[in-house]
Amino acid sequence: MSKQYRKRSTLVGALLIISGLGYCQRQRSEVIVVSPQVNPDNTVIFRYLAPTAHEVKLNAQFEKKHVPMTKDSSGVWSVKVGPVNPDMYPYCFVVDGISVADPRNTNIFPNEGFQNSLVEITGSNPLVHTLQNVPHGTVSYQYYNSPELGIRPVVIYTPPAYDKNLNAKYPVLYLLHGTTDTEETWTKVGRANVILDNLIAQGKAKPMIIVMPYGRAYPVINKSSGSLRNWENLQEFKKDFLNNLVPFVEENYRVKKEKDSRAIAGFSGGGGETLYLGLNNPEMFSWICGFAPGMLKEEFARNNETAFANPSVTNKLKLFWIGVGREDGLYPVISEYMKILDEKGIKHETLISEGGHTWMNCKLYLTTIAQKLFK
Amino acid sequence: MSKQYRKRSTLVGALLIISGLGYCQRQRSEVIVVSPQVNPDNTVIFRYLAPTAHEVKLNAQFEKKHVPMTKDSSGVWSVKVGPVNPDMYPYCFVVDGISVADPRNTNIFPNEGFQNSLVEITGSNPLVHTLQNVPHGTVSYQYYNSPELGIRPVVIYTPPAYDKNLNAKYPVLYLLHGTTDTEETWTKVGRANVILDNLIAQGKAKPMIIVMPYGRAYPVINKSSGSLRNWENLQEFKKDFLNNLVPFVEENYRVKKEKDSRAIAGFSGGGGETLYLGLNNPEMFSWICGFAPGMLKEEFARNNETAFANPSVTNKLKLFWIGVGREDGLYPVISEYMKILDEKGIKHETLISEGGHTWMNCKLYLTTIAQKLFK
Repeated sequence: MSKQYRKRSTLVGALLIISGLGYCQRQRSEVIVVSPQVNPDNTVIFRYLAPTAHEVKLNAQFEKKHVPMTKDSSGVWSVKVGPVNPDMYPYCFVVDGISVADPRNTNIFPNEGFQNSLVEITGSNPLVHTLQNVPHGTVSYQYYNSPELGIRPVVIYTPPAYDKNLNAKYPVLYLLHGTTDTEETWTKVGRANVILDNLIAQGKAKPMIIVMPYGRAYPVINKSSGSLRNWENLQEFKKDFLNNLVPFVEENYRVKKEKDSRAIAGFSGGGGETLYLGLNNPEMFSWICGFAPGMLKEEFARNNETAFANPSVTNKLKLFWIGVGREDGLYPVISEYMKILDEKGIKHETLISEGGHTWMNCKLYLTTIAQKLFK
Repeated sequence: MSKQYRKRSTLVGALLIISGLGYCQRQRSEVIVVSPQVNPDNTVIFRYLAPTAHEVKLNAQFEKKHVPMTKDSSGVWSVKVGPVNPDMYPYCFVVDGISVADPRNTNIFPNEGFQNSLVEITGSNPLVHTLQNVPHGTVSYQYYNSPELGIRPVVIYTPPAYDKNLNAKYPVLYLLHGTTDTEETWTKVGRANVILDNLIAQGKAKPMIIVMPYGRAYPVINKSSGSLRNWENLQEFKKDFLNNLVPFVEENYRVKKEKDSRAIAGFSGGGGETLYLGLNNPEMFSWICGFAPGMLKEEFARNNETAFANPSVTNKLKLFWIGVGREDGLYPVISEYMKILDEKGIKHETLISEGGHTWMNCKLYLTTIAQKLFK
C-alpha cells in the first residue's frame, strides 16, 4: 500500500473518530486520499477514490486537454502532471463523463454552475496573489436589504489600517464576478484581497475599498425552473446596485463619494454588467474596466446607448480599460467592439494577454488596473 | 423529460456559454439538475447525476439510515423525503460506496475530512439561525501571524453597530470548531453570526465579539503524511492561541480585557480544547462551555490538572457549562466526566439534549449559552 493513503481504520485516532460521530462522514472502509499533492519541483499529483468508476480524467486549467488517470488496487485513481507554471488554477475530475470537485480539497471554487477545486503552485518566489507577511486588509461578509429582492450578501475588502485611520476616507472599486460565480469568487478564486494587500505594501496601489456583491438579481440557473432570464435579471440587478448597494456602502463605510473615487470592474458576465452599468452612468463612475467582458454583437447598440450617442461624455472618464486573452472565445467579439470604439473615437486602453477566459487572467487584469485606479 | 432538468444545450443562453469558456465546466451533454429542492410542505427532493453508477444513496442527518435513490432514463438519481423538521442539515450522496457532496449546491460544509452539503428547511416561522431582517453584525476574515506556524486565518464576528459605537468595548467569546472543521465552519454550518444577530435583536444576548480561529496548529489529517498528532498539535495550538491570537484580537478590536469579559466555547474536538485551555487558564476565562466536548477517560487527569487539584479555583468561574446529546457517542464518557466533577465538588451546568453529535445540536448549544454569557 502506498504511503500516501492507507486504510482509514489503521490511522484514525480517538479525536477524529469522535469528531466523525453522527456526521455525514466517509465510509469506514474508505481509504484516506491526499489530493492535490504539490511537490517542490512544481509537479502535482491528483488522486480520486472511485473503485467502481470506468474512467477518471483530470480537467485542470493548466492542461489543454483532459488527462487520463489510472486506478490502483485500492480503487484510487491518480496522475502526476507538470512541472506546472506557478499560479492558482481551477480543476476537477471527470468521472465517467461527470465533472466533480476534489473531495479531499477544502479550497473550493464558489460557483452555482459547477463545483471546481483550486490548486496553488506557489513556486520559489511569491506571486502577487501569494499570501505574504505584509499588513493585511479585512474581508467582511455583510448583508444589505433590497425591498424587492430581500436580504442580499456582499463581500467587502477594506485596506490595512482602515480600522485605525478613523479620519481617512477611501475610494471604492465595485468588482463584479462572472455569470455563475458568487460574491465569494473574487476573494477565493481571484484573491482580490491578497493582491491588493501586496500591491499596497509595495506602494503600487492606492489603499481602496473593494465591494464584491452577489452580482445578479437571482441565480442565472434559477433553482426552481432552470430558466435563464438575463436581461430582466440585469435590470433588476441594476436597480438593486444603484438604489440599495451603493447607498449601503456609502452609509456604512468611510468612502469618498465623488465619481473620480468610484470605479467599476468585472469579469465575463460581470464584465458585461460593468460596461453596461458604468458607461450608462457616467455621473457615477470615472473608472470602468472590463475583464473579458461578456457581450453579443447584436446587443452593442442597446448596451452602449450613452457612449455611442455621446462619445465626448465617455471620453471624460479617467480610465476605460478592456482586457482579454488571445485564446478567449470572446476575443473576436471583443475585438470587434474595440474596433467600433475606435471608429466612434471613444478612447480606451486595452490589454491583450495570453491565455483564455480564466481566473488566472482575472488576477492579471485586477493586478494591472489596481495600479492605475485613483491616480 | 421532467421539468426539473433538461438537456443543457436546449437551455443555455449566450452569457452562460460565454462564462463557461475555458472553465472546468460541466460536460456539454450533461443535464441541468436542481438539488436540493425544498418544497413548501417541507419535503425535499435530492438529485444527483451519475448515469454509470450502480447505487446512489442519500446520507442526510435528518434520516437515521441512508435512503436509496432511484435512477431515471437521463441518468439522474433522485429521492423525495420528508416532511423534514425545519433546521439546517448536512448531507451527502453515497455513490457506489463513496461519499460525495451535492455538486448542484453552493451551500458547502467547510471541512478537511469530508465534503458535505447543507440543506436548510426554513419552515413557516423563522428559527433562531434563520437570516432575518434585523441589524446584522459583520463576519470578517482576518490573518494574524505566528512566528512558529506562519500566517493564520481567523474569522471574527463583530455585533451590529460595532463600527458606529466607536467608544464601546465588547466582551469576547472564543469559539472553536470540531476536529476536521475549519475557521469557516462556525459561521457557515453553525450560523454563529445569524444566531447572535437574532438574539441581540431580541434583547436576549449581550452584544459580543466572537473569535473563530483555525482551531489547530496544522491539519489533523496532515496533507503530506496522513498522520495524526493530536497532543503535539494541541500544545502548538495552545501556544499560538495564547501568544498570538488573543494579543491580535486585543490589539485590533475594541474588547474588554478582564477575564469576566472573556469566554471560550467549542464543539467536539474543539470542545476538548475548550476545557483544556479554559480550565487550565482560570486567570483568563470566566466562562467555559463545552459542546459535546471530545474527551477520553484516560486523559481526564492530564487535561483537567488545574480543576482537579483546585476545585475552588474552577468554582470561581461565572459559568462552566457542558451540553451533549443523548444519542451522541460521547454521551457515556461525558456523563462519566460530569460524575467526576460532581464527586470533586466542581460546579457545572449541563444541558442533555435530544439527538447526536451534530451541528443541529451545536446551534442549540450556542443559542443557549449566548443568552447566559457576560450577564
